[in-house]
Amino acid sequence: MTTQVASSPKVLVTQPAERELRIERIFNASRERVWKALTHPTLIAQWWGRGNKLVIERMDVQPGGHWRFVEHAPDGTYGFEGRFREVKPLERLEQTFEWDGAPGHVSVDITTLEDLGDGRTKLVSVSLFHTVEDLQGMVGAGMEQGINQSYAALDALLAQPH
Amino acid sequence: MTTQVASSPKVLVTQPAERELRIERIFNASRERVWKALTHPTLIAQWWGRGNKLVIERMDVQPGGHWRFVEHAPDGTYGFEGRFREVKPLERLEQTFEWDGAPGHVSVDITTLEDLGDGRTKLVSVSLFHTVEDLQGMVGAGMEQGINQSYAALDALLAQPH
Repeated sequence: MTTQVASSPKVLVTQPAERELRIERIFNASRERVWKALTHPTLIAQWWGRGNKLVIERMDVQPGGHWRFVEHAPDGTYGFEGRFREVKPLERLEQTFEWDGAPGHVSVDITTLEDLGDGRTKLVSVSLFHTVEDLQGMVGAGMEQGINQSYAALDALLAQPH
Repeated sequence: MTTQVASSPKVLVTQPAERELRIERIFNASRERVWKALTHPTLIAQWWGRGNKLVIERMDVQPGGHWRFVEHAPDGTYGFEGRFREVKPLERLEQTFEWDGAPGHVSVDITTLEDLGDGRTKLVSVSLFHTVEDLQGMVGAGMEQGINQSYAALDALLAQPH
């Protein structure tokens, strides 16, 4: 079963299995720059919060390391956290993801980066939720809009001279 | 499908579904005393580590609160952690469980206590693993022996005058 959940001109969200969401997005930057933007705290703080102040409380990018971000939005403070399972520099990040608003509802996110050879990079992120209800909750909470906003901010960061 | 995985004279371990393990155990103590032993740091330190020194680094028993225990065994140090989803005093604890040796492999454990009315308490713990492989890994790591040792230590604690 592969159900297309939603798509914008740039992001493709599909549901390859009952508890699984797959996100595909292309960035106009080298794999090295996209990898750094995903893993370096000072860079993450510039796009992940979609314009909101983001405090990186923990970001220990190695197997077993924890991460925790706190987003300060106009309507409140939102914490997100998890732990890295596998880290293969430039290629693959495997980590858990949990939002303070639904504590203990954990997904496992596997992000891979592919060098498209023309200066662009394809990001694929596959999330396996603990239950179907957890997946539905995340989709219902406006996940796709949030991702689109974050990735638009990441586009802007990557477009800056470096 | 309900497969009996293993049992000792006191503990009954079954697999009610593909990703699920169920543990049942009766304690010779009131529900109040069993609940305290499950939730108070100074009491947990006396049985959870099965005779090994146990350091309770975090134990915030409320929805969204974190817990983290570090067991100092003769052959090494083992960390365990998670987060509470639901807490209903004396009756029900819902929390995640993760071992440092397999970071990011998270189960959701629901523990309920039933007052048997004769001074005894029945504990039922149902664990939903993220994948079948995670369940098999936990069973293969000697989970049942560890639980039996912990619960025997809990029996001893509950047998002390109070």
